[in-house]
Amino acid sequence: MPELRKDPITGRWVIIATDRAKRPSDFIRQSVPPPAATICPFDYGNEHKTPPEVLAYRSSGARDQAGWRVRVVPNKFPVLGIEGELNKQADLMYDKMNGIGAHEVIIETPDHSATFSDLPEKQIEEVLWAFKDRVSDLKKDRRFRYILLFKNHGEAAGASLEHSHSQLIALPVIPGSVKEEVDGALFFYSQRDRCIFCDIVRQEITAGVRMVMETDRFAVLEPYAPRFPFETWILPKRHESHFEESDGATLQNLAWVLRSTMRKIDKVLERPAYNFIVHSSPVQDAPLPHYHWHIEIIPKLTKVAGFEWGTGFYINPTPPEESARFLREAGLG
Amino acid sequence: MPELRKDPITGRWVIIATDRAKRPSDFIRQSVPPPAATICPFDYGNEHKTPPEVLAYRSSGARDQAGWRVRVVPNKFPVLGIEGELNKQADLMYDKMNGIGAHEVIIETPDHSATFSDLPEKQIEEVLWAFKDRVSDLKKDRRFRYILLFKNHGEAAGASLEHSHSQLIALPVIPGSVKEEVDGALFFYSQRDRCIFCDIVRQEITAGVRMVMETDRFAVLEPYAPRFPFETWILPKRHESHFEESDGATLQNLAWVLRSTMRKIDKVLERPAYNFIVHSSPVQDAPLPHYHWHIEIIPKLTKVAGFEWGTGFYINPTPPEESARFLREAGLG
Repeated sequence: MPELRKDPITGRWVIIATDRAKRPSDFIRQSVPPPAATICPFDYGNEHKTPPEVLAYRSSGARDQAGWRVRVVPNKFPVLGIEGELNKQADLMYDKMNGIGAHEVIIETPDHSATFSDLPEKQIEEVLWAFKDRVSDLKKDRRFRYILLFKNHGEAAGASLEHSHSQLIALPVIPGSVKEEVDGALFFYSQRDRCIFCDIVRQEITAGVRMVMETDRFAVLEPYAPRFPFETWILPKRHESHFEESDGATLQNLAWVLRSTMRKIDKVLERPAYNFIVHSSPVQDAPLPHYHWHIEIIPKLTKVAGFEWGTGFYINPTPPEESARFLREAGLG
Repeated sequence: MPELRKDPITGRWVIIATDRAKRPSDFIRQSVPPPAATICPFDYGNEHKTPPEVLAYRSSGARDQAGWRVRVVPNKFPVLGIEGELNKQADLMYDKMNGIGAHEVIIETPDHSATFSDLPEKQIEEVLWAFKDRVSDLKKDRRFRYILLFKNHGEAAGASLEHSHSQLIALPVIPGSVKEEVDGALFFYSQRDRCIFCDIVRQEITAGVRMVMETDRFAVLEPYAPRFPFETWILPKRHESHFEESDGATLQNLAWVLRSTMRKIDKVLERPAYNFIVHSSPVQDAPLPHYHWHIEIIPKLTKVAGFEWGTGFYINPTPPEESARFLREAGLG
């Protein structure tokens, strides 16, 4: 008998197949190949092929020249424009505004051939610092109400360039699914005076069945009602609502945790395409007692089809207790 | 400058690229090939390879034998089980219940080689009758609160069998995105005493720029804030909350409209993979003055990536005014 499970934060139901649970070997594998040798705007020497950098951590070299370790540039084909006014207006019965926002690319390494999980821990730590620095800078612009940090890895997960990179999009509105999550957490808080994510972390560590690993600062777990097989969350143990408030020691530990988690996923699922997304509080909000930043990792193993589009309900062929066990037992590679 | 547009029903924002709008030829084309000759459980003579039929319209033959025109069978690998109690219960801090529901397959034709848009109008009309008959029958089971009718066409859109078919899933809960849509429509109704979909149909027919075509009974249009390029909606002009209440003349006209729309999409986008989904009211509700059933067609042209998963916000590279023009100008094929 399959099981219907409810995500405690958003109230979203998922169908978990418990009978014929799919194991890692059941998924059609399309391992993401290592980046092909090609002329790439993210390589040393091609800095002029991107818009001028907005941030770089450098060992040598001048602005927009080789010698950087991590480099952040505006997206050459931004989905939103940085200049102008929002100009909110009616259009017949509808509402629209100018597409004002920021769209940046975090080039995670000058090494064209490296994939994210191959990067040294120190390199990933610098990527996380770039995340923090860019959000801290952009949130000074009061037009931006939400800043999303995410990574698409592999063509199946929407990546269009192979060179390891992640993205930042700053938005003038708070997106629907962020509002849903923050409001869900607020509702829980209003009833119990506790953060629901703190409760989840504590419960899951005690129960153990959905845990992947833990450190002093972070818990890595499969959520109770995951939309996707092997969906994995990384949550700080200490309550913190805004990712960009993380201190150096936290980012250092997160680098190890994120790298280790991705290596486990690569091992169990043979280097799948994936997305990871930093879920954090709206940037103009003061610290929130009810919301808790975290990272959600979604390996791209299944196809979203008519049922999901029609209902927002997901069918997950792998119980999180199963996927947690596979990831727990996989070494760090 | 890109544009942010808000869906008036759900409040969901989308980013519409207006500068470098993508035309049909810009999408990576993966035309769905015609079904390959293969041993297929949906062909005449293989009726024993599916669970026993729950409905068939026949020209000849006995139950579970050849001679049917449209045949409905339980899914051999159902995502939900039909037997048992819901048994709602707590699991630590979480909520779960048994995965009770129905999962049926509507085999749209005995002709293995035909794709949906190639079917004669009369055949599509019978498919729509099967939709109506199955929902009308299943809604008598009070455990089912929502019944979803949908079609996945092509592997990229999640279809696992090539033989033309659609699916029905009956659920014991009202899914989140259905609730969101019905609640959004109710909010509008509570303010203005009018159905928002009726307003949209009237406005769009007058404005014309997003219209694909219309008949006496139906309007086919591109919505103002579509999530996907070439997302197309078919709405009855006369207010009706439940699809299954459609009368024979309506289904007859819908068959023509749906077939013509799919043929236009096939022509403009070179036979893409797609999903279509019947959006209808929760089946146990009395007729609703605020909700209006309709069909949403989503050609599978883009990949959903980290940004969409993180925000519920979609980036649509084709303004609906452009896609409407392409579809309007395409002949019926």
